[in-house]
Amino acid sequence: MGPTGIGDKVEGYHAVAAAVAAGRVFELAVDRSRSTDPDVAALAAAVEEGGGTVRVVADLSAMASTEVPQGVVAHARPIPLASLEEAAAASDPPALIVLDHLEDPRNVGAITRSAAAAGVGGLVVATRRAAPLSPAAFKAAAGAFESLSVVAVSSIAEGLARLGDMGIWRVGLEPGGSQSLFGLELLTEPVALVIGAEGKGLSRLVAERCDVLAAVPQTGTVESLNASVAAALAMYELSRMRGWVT
Amino acid sequence: MGPTGIGDKVEGYHAVAAAVAAGRVFELAVDRSRSTDPDVAALAAAVEEGGGTVRVVADLSAMASTEVPQGVVAHARPIPLASLEEAAAASDPPALIVLDHLEDPRNVGAITRSAAAAGVGGLVVATRRAAPLSPAAFKAAAGAFESLSVVAVSSIAEGLARLGDMGIWRVGLEPGGSQSLFGLELLTEPVALVIGAEGKGLSRLVAERCDVLAAVPQTGTVESLNASVAAALAMYELSRMRGWVT
Repeated sequence: MGPTGIGDKVEGYHAVAAAVAAGRVFELAVDRSRSTDPDVAALAAAVEEGGGTVRVVADLSAMASTEVPQGVVAHARPIPLASLEEAAAASDPPALIVLDHLEDPRNVGAITRSAAAAGVGGLVVATRRAAPLSPAAFKAAAGAFESLSVVAVSSIAEGLARLGDMGIWRVGLEPGGSQSLFGLELLTEPVALVIGAEGKGLSRLVAERCDVLAAVPQTGTVESLNASVAAALAMYELSRMRGWVT
Repeated sequence: MGPTGIGDKVEGYHAVAAAVAAGRVFELAVDRSRSTDPDVAALAAAVEEGGGTVRVVADLSAMASTEVPQGVVAHARPIPLASLEEAAAASDPPALIVLDHLEDPRNVGAITRSAAAAGVGGLVVATRRAAPLSPAAFKAAAGAFESLSVVAVSSIAEGLARLGDMGIWRVGLEPGGSQSLFGLELLTEPVALVIGAEGKGLSRLVAERCDVLAAVPQTGTVESLNASVAAALAMYELSRMRGWVT
């Protein structure tokens, strides 16, 4: 069985602040050197007000998973994972982003942040790789995980099949794709954008399950964009075509 | 005096391949475990054909600056730095991206890659922070530094003043900016996009030198986008408004 929730340990100021605001944090560890910073002190006060405990520690890095926890490490009630149906219902019409085994937690975090900014409400990852939903991913997401519906599926290809059954179009990002993502009419329909792994791109099975393979157009000779950049350009195009941002 | 060139040490497969293609590499060190990979062997053959030397070493990580050099470390003739005038002439009408003390070499690399893809020909950094133009930045740029004109200025604020004198509009990205970057007419004029540091944003002096402060519009409550994502969205908007990508 996979995990039932994510974000039980959160590090980094913005990520912890969002978890505190969501009422999830029951224990906050604060580095002694930062405990009098007004921002950090306000976080500590909010945790205590909510019935949680605050510990000031001499060396926070010993308990942190990230290199620079910015003075705060929180233990929190996990965010429950969602079903595909719940994630689809998070945007109207449905808009999901599906990560095909991305390995870099910083890319996963940046994509989550872009999804929240663009209005894409559902994030789908593979259960085996729920590991990238680590404190490093939470830190890079700067709080964005609190506002998305996150789904873990045992197989991305199978998850895409189920999304297809739900009437959701599957658009894979493929640097060599002949269609441009810009102006792609499908983005105004219920849709899942599928992002491939850094360097490797979409796996064969996953690409076969997509209804359309499309590319971010490029002027230059560079092989492909950074995965989190390509994902952001795709999600913002969807958001613009739907009139969510102008 | 600042540096006169960049990229004298290059690591990571795509970055090294681009440096080899540019004819810059005079010595290539290859990790023994990777020396028979067809891709790596082809790089080695190209270096030798160009009169360079190839060394197969037992432990490449000892000489690498990045954690995962992907089997190759190259020593190369540096790419000469450009003047502001040369960087402005690299796109028509001029399009530059100015980095106000970004500290993360991976963000700098990703922005360089996006600039090459979008057709933005000039990159301006501060001399004191030419350090981020490190092997880690080159690796993240995946070869994109070879095709841009890079300028190092002693002060970003002063560089912006000179760009103004050259008739180039300065557009600063500011999450709180009241204007939307999307559809901003100024992007079709000679323009420099100015990106602030991670977390801190634009410094006061730099913001004051901008003609316009604009934001990537957002639907959600997240404070701001990742710096390399915001930069990519801005550069792609410029590229689309000029008809460079469709």
